[in-house]
Parts: sequence; structure tokens; C-alpha cells
Amino acid sequence: MKSKGQIRIENWPLRNCRSRKASHKQDRTRALYSEILRDEAVARLNELGKVSDADGYLERTFMSPASVRAGILIREWMEDAGLTTWVDSMGNLHGRIEGINASAQALLIGSHSDTVVDAGIFDGSLGIISAISALKVLKSNGKLGQLKRPVEVIAFSDEEGVRFQSTFLGSAAIAGVLPVSALKISDKSGVTVQDALKKNSIDIAEESLLELKYDPASVWGYVELHIEQGPVLEWMGFPLGVVKGIAGQTRMKVTVRGSQGHAGTVPMSMRKDPMSAAAELIVLLESLCKHPRDFLSDCGNCNEFTKESLSTSLVCTVGEISTWPSASNVIPGQVTFTVDLRAIDDVGREAVLYELSNRMYQICDRRSVSCIIERKHDANAVICDHELSSRLKSAAYTAISRMIGEVQEEAPVLMSGAGHDAMAMSHLTKVGMLFVRCRGGISHSPEEHVLDDDVWTAGLAILAFLESHM
Amino acid sequence: MKSKGQIRIENWPLRNCRSRKASHKQDRTRALYSEILRDEAVARLNELGKVSDADGYLERTFMSPASVRAGILIREWMEDAGLTTWVDSMGNLHGRIEGINASAQALLIGSHSDTVVDAGIFDGSLGIISAISALKVLKSNGKLGQLKRPVEVIAFSDEEGVRFQSTFLGSAAIAGVLPVSALKISDKSGVTVQDALKKNSIDIAEESLLELKYDPASVWGYVELHIEQGPVLEWMGFPLGVVKGIAGQTRMKVTVRGSQGHAGTVPMSMRKDPMSAAAELIVLLESLCKHPRDFLSDCGNCNEFTKESLSTSLVCTVGEISTWPSASNVIPGQVTFTVDLRAIDDVGREAVLYELSNRMYQICDRRSVSCIIERKHDANAVICDHELSSRLKSAAYTAISRMIGEVQEEAPVLMSGAGHDAMAMSHLTKVGMLFVRCRGGISHSPEEHVLDDDVWTAGLAILAFLESHM
Repeated sequence: MKSKGQIRIENWPLRNCRSRKASHKQDRTRALYSEILRDEAVARLNELGKVSDADGYLERTFMSPASVRAGILIREWMEDAGLTTWVDSMGNLHGRIEGINASAQALLIGSHSDTVVDAGIFDGSLGIISAISALKVLKSNGKLGQLKRPVEVIAFSDEEGVRFQSTFLGSAAIAGVLPVSALKISDKSGVTVQDALKKNSIDIAEESLLELKYDPASVWGYVELHIEQGPVLEWMGFPLGVVKGIAGQTRMKVTVRGSQGHAGTVPMSMRKDPMSAAAELIVLLESLCKHPRDFLSDCGNCNEFTKESLSTSLVCTVGEISTWPSASNVIPGQVTFTVDLRAIDDVGREAVLYELSNRMYQICDRRSVSCIIERKHDANAVICDHELSSRLKSAAYTAISRMIGEVQEEAPVLMSGAGHDAMAMSHLTKVGMLFVRCRGGISHSPEEHVLDDDVWTAGLAILAFLESHM
Repeated sequence: MKSKGQIRIENWPLRNCRSRKASHKQDRTRALYSEILRDEAVARLNELGKVSDADGYLERTFMSPASVRAGILIREWMEDAGLTTWVDSMGNLHGRIEGINASAQALLIGSHSDTVVDAGIFDGSLGIISAISALKVLKSNGKLGQLKRPVEVIAFSDEEGVRFQSTFLGSAAIAGVLPVSALKISDKSGVTVQDALKKNSIDIAEESLLELKYDPASVWGYVELHIEQGPVLEWMGFPLGVVKGIAGQTRMKVTVRGSQGHAGTVPMSMRKDPMSAAAELIVLLESLCKHPRDFLSDCGNCNEFTKESLSTSLVCTVGEISTWPSASNVIPGQVTFTVDLRAIDDVGREAVLYELSNRMYQICDRRSVSCIIERKHDANAVICDHELSSRLKSAAYTAISRMIGEVQEEAPVLMSGAGHDAMAMSHLTKVGMLFVRCRGGISHSPEEHVLDDDVWTAGLAILAFLESHM
């Protein structure tokens, strides 16, 4: 993974330099707005991380009570940064400053405010808070009115898709790619998206959903800053990286049905046990995703590039599984599990899905159980805009230079294995992304962590990017 | 499975004979108490099968609201049969008739009134209702007082163990083998056994639990009639079978812990995925239980009899599985599943458990995940009493003969792969069991079914057995 020519930045993080000259440090710290971009941003991340629907761990799903409370907090912070705020009819929170030309194409900066179950505090929130903090710096130094185009920060209401098993409810609505049928999707309690909004006094109909779409002509581009959620930046010793693209993703639900029966009385040879079948399917899935070359030898559409990109990028996960009726002394009648499959190459992903489905059906046939594979969500890979990425690379360089004085290397360029709102927004406008290093590459876990100084650097990078629009 | 010398009974069930001679049939039907033993018994089974805590399927767990309602119904039917009734401090319902000698050793006849989730209506209930119906016949023909020993019907409050993951709460208390610590076991909501009883106005302390134990000297024996829950009787064409023994059973909980993380960003080669590990463990479990000989070649304690009995009787089931945090886009941090393992030979069962655990730990070590195997429940195999089994065989023969006029074959003798209250009661007294054929061998499922005429035959067999105590 380590590219040639990229080296570790020495004396990083900043605290390593502090002992050198205390007064010099104090000047620079003031100049770099550490109170806003580091201290306040970190405090806000911690405060937001306590806003949870669960007791003892972080969980905020679309339109849940905690999500509403989180929205109230973020809105206060947006207004504190001088932004005009509103909530749209999909629950997205907006904060906008018009700058010197309200009719110019707007720069959108966003990320999501929802979380997975048992989440970390940086995923999504860091992108929202660093944008607000950078704008607050411009307000504090009187430059907010000098922006040559409108800047709008958006806290998207749903990216993780935990509650409705359908990602990007918020950003897809703004990008105009959310089908109106999405309003009727139900959560596990039978509450629809529409119901969930209505419960929070937001009346949305098909028409108002369509009206949410932004006019592409009114938008200059979309930028998102997000934690990497992977181990590459830490391994390279860089606090920031520029994203060249986002892997395509397919989510499936697999339902295996067999013969329900008493655990003690049906001989092994007479069973049609969907749990054993599901276990075999999951073992197959892992093998295929670990060694795609071994399974795709006959793939006509797969060139060497596809096979190579699959070998390095393909990841597959079974995150949920359940049996029915779920009792220890009953052979299940049905087992259901999810499959999350991602790859950088769309052709390769389709080839894997084709091979996987065929082999799954063969296993189920051999075992005389039925197997239903439903594709619940598909997103093609997204390539980030070249110009935007160049500007973000410059901004990252400026931020790192300001922090440690001299940098010989540019920020590394990465692929993203995680989906982001930028995927949905790419249907509306050009997109660019910055990644921030996180400890151990761990995300979707309470162990998720970003160094305080990396939060600071992230804020400085957004600030530098905004300054390029003056 | 078909023993030599056993043949199908022709012209079975009885309705095949009916066309022969209508008036003869009417006489015999009256003589065989079809109104009580068939029509009313079937109606009561259907009525009881509607008493559920769930909407749309049958579920009655220890001390649940539906269990209490079921108890009220059964108590009415016991009193209707002339029995004196009471509920003990573990929620078991008793109905007793003293007969001509109240100080003689009592015959206990019982089965359980709780059910699994999404259950059939015959499992447990048939044993209770056929005993009550047979006693009602004795009351109706004035013979109830002629019983030469007390007869006590018991509807046990818990056999399935669904709510507290601990089977035989009811019968083990009466047999004196329920540890007092059982009162502190919690269900998924944190409610203890003691709490659940208290909620139904039953105050139980350690002392009163110990007092529940019957004096072995006061008991003559325990008899249980139950649906087979397997396919053997149907395959042999017999409505009834005599049980020679009950397989031993071990229930385990397996917890696999790995590294929780984002489904998109952790390369396959860097994962410690407990779900893939669990799938491999379940595939191993199935292989081992299908082909124990292949895995036990080094087993020092296993003689040829043990290996042969494992090959024909070993059954293993994973009925429950769950992931944490259970989201489709998160690599789970933990997976938990149950294992239910049964075999007729106790030495063989231990050998399988030893081999299974060793291989499971090896798989977990190789995958760098941790694996905790907890034995939650163990019950040794039980051999039924020879004298009681002979009497039950005679009773079955009498019942079948009365139904179809002439029988050349005795009822078949079977092993039980399912656990029954008789397992717990064997610690108190000698036990005997009768099995009733069920359609397709299916149980623990709404598809569970017993022919009306087989319900009738079952009642006749219990009646014949009771008549042998006059």
C-alpha cells in the first residue's frame, strides 16, 4: 500500500515540536486558531458523541429522538458561525452564508449526523464540525463576507442506512436520486420514512421530495471531509489524504428456507437445515472475497486490471443474521443474513456477484433448501473530480505546512472502501473528499479515535480550501 | 429403522373400517368413549392451542400471561374429570384422585403445558389432555373411585426452557433436582424465575422450593404420553410406540469475539471476523454430527457400540445465532450461537463434545478470534423402567385391539431423541413413556399434527393402563 516517494512526516504531531520554543509556539497556536479548530471542535465532537438513543453506547438513526437533539446542537453551532439555518423535508440540516455574490454557484460542504449502532464519535460528525469551525474562524477574523460564492454546510439526516436498510436518504434527496418509493420503506417496527418525518412535524409528500433536488446550475461542487475508517494514513504517517474515488457497493439480503423441526428427533441425514446451509454460504462468501482470482477464472468480462483490482479491493461482510423461530431446541425453518460487498471496479463487482449467486444457489439445491438473494442497494464506484481534488490537495498541503513549518511531501491519494454522501452528491455535481487519519483504522466502533491535533489539521485544511474561494 | 417382524397394521386408521357396518360401528364408538377420548379431547387441544402470548403463532413460556390462562383452562378440565386441583410454588398444576387407598403409592401422569416459539398444539398438551380424558371416562362410568392407588395428573410449568434457557423447571422441582440457584436465573429482560412467579402471586423462597420435592416412598411411578416428534411411528404405520429410553443432551452457548470494524475499509486479509469464524464452526459441527466415525478415530473411550450408536443417534442443532452490533455495514465484534447436541450413549456424547471443543478452539486460534464455549445444560440418557414399559405395551396393545378388533403385532419400541419431563422425574421414581405418531415426524412447528383417531387411541391406551390399576 505504501507508494514510492512518500515518506513519513517527521516530528508529527505538533506536540513534538512544542518544547523547542514556548513563545514561538504560543504565537503560532493563536495564528492557527487552535481555540476554535482544535479545542472547541474536539469538545463539540465529544458533546455530540454523547447524544445517543442508547444507554451506554452511541446510536443515532434517521429521525430518532437523539438525531433530533443532535440537530438542535449542530444548528446552534452553525448559527454561532454566522450561518443562516433551516431543516429540509428529509430532515437534513443546512447552514448557509451567501458571501459577496448570492447568485454565484454555491460550494456545498457536508457529511452525515446519523451513526451506526455502537458507533464512534468522529464518523460523519468530524466533517460537519470541521466545516462549521472553519467558517467560524472566517467569522471571527471578519472574512466571512468575503467569500466569493455561497457556502452551504449540510448535515445529512441519513447515510448509514441502519434504520431503513437504505443508505443516503438525506443526500440522495438533495441530489435528486432518491425514488419517491423510499418514503414508504418501513423500519423493523413498521414505521415508514414518511411516518418518521411526520412524527417530527415534517410533512413530506412525493411532490415535496422531488422539490428537494438542487438545481445543478446553482451548485459549484460538493466537498466532504471524513475520517478514513481504514489503516492506510496511519500506516503512512500522514494526517490527511485526498480521495480519488469511492468503491462501488452492493447490499443483499439472503433468505434460506428449510424444514423446521425438533432438534432431538430429526436424524441428521433427513434434515433440511437452513442454518447449516447459511453457514456454508458464509464460508463460501469469505473464500470468494479473499481469493477472487480462484473463482473468476472463467469470467469473460474480467480483464487483468479487473482481477487485480478485485484482489486488492474486494471486501465482503455478513453483519446481521437471524433464525426463525430462534430457539435453541428447534431446527430453524428460516435463516436470513445480510451481505455487504464492495469493490473499486464495477465490472469486477458484478462478476463477483454473478459467481457468488450461482454458487449459492448450487449449495442450496444440493441441500434441498430454498435460497432467495435480494439486492437491496447498489451504488457504482465514484471517481472524484480532478480539479476539486487538486484544490483539496493544495489545502491539505497548506494545513500541514502551517502546522509543522515545512513539508516535502504532498498528502497521499487514496481510494475509499466506505460509502459516503459524496456518492449520492456525485449525481448532482462534481465531488471531492479529504480523509483524516484515525487510530488503527478502526471505525464503526467505540474504539474509533482521531488525535486532537489531526482534528485541528482537518479544520485548517477546510479553512485553506475556503480561503481559496476569496 | 424398521425392526424385523413388525408390519404395518392394515385398515388403519379406524375410519377405513367404518363403511363395513354402520350399526356395529355406532356401538363400538360408544363403547370406546369417542365423545370424550376423541371429540372432546381434540376440541380441547385446539382450544388450548389458541392460548398464546403471540399474535398469529403459538408461544407459551414459563409463567407468561398465556401460560396462566392455559392453566385456568386445564384446571377446569381436571375438576370436570373429578380431580382435586392445586398449583404448586413452581407453577405446576396438579389434579389428583385418591382412589380406594389414599396412603398407597401414587401413580403420577404428566406432561408440560409450556411451548416453544411458533409451536404445534400437541407437544406437551396431548399428554395432559389424554390423561384427563381417560380419568373423565372412569368418572363417567363410575369407576374413578375403584382405582387402587392415588392417581395424580401434573401439567408441568416448564419443559422447553425457552424463557430461561434452562429446561424442566417444573418437573425438576418435583423430582428434587432443581438447584435453588435456578430461582435467580434471568430471562432476556432481566426478570428472574422468582420474579416471574411473584408476578403471578406465587411467593417462592429457597426453602419452599426444597419442600416441593415429592417423597420417593409416596410415589409408585411416573408415566408420560407424548407425541413422537420424529418420523419412526408414521414410517412403521403404528399409532403408538413404547419408549425404551431418552437420549442424553448437552446445550451450549458459543461466543466468538473478533475485531469490530467498518465493512468497507478493513482488507479481508486484516480481518478478525467472528461471523466467518462462527460459520466455519457451524459447518464443522454439522460434519462431525453427520459423520462421527470420521472424527473419533482416536477416541480411547469409544468402543464399537458407542461409535455405532453415535452414527445412528447423534443430532446437533444451531437454533439461535446473533451478531453484535448487528448492522449490515459493520464487521461484527461478537457472534453468539447455541448448540444442542443429543446422543443415546452418554460416553459417546462426551467424546463428541471433547473432539468438537478441541477443533473449535483450533479454528478460533487460527483465525485470531477468541472462542468461549459454555455448557448451559446437561442431561444424561434415561432408560425407562422395564415393568412400566411392559404395562404400557400391554395398554397400547389393548387400545389398538379395541380400535381395530385384531392386532398381530405389539407396539414398536423406540428411543426418544427429544428430552421429556420423564428425564427429570427419573431422579424421583421409575418412569415409562408412550409415543403417539405425528404427521411427517414434524414438531416444534405449526405443521405439527396428530390424527383425531390417534388422539382417541392415545386416550384408550391411558384408560387401559389406568384400568390395570383397579
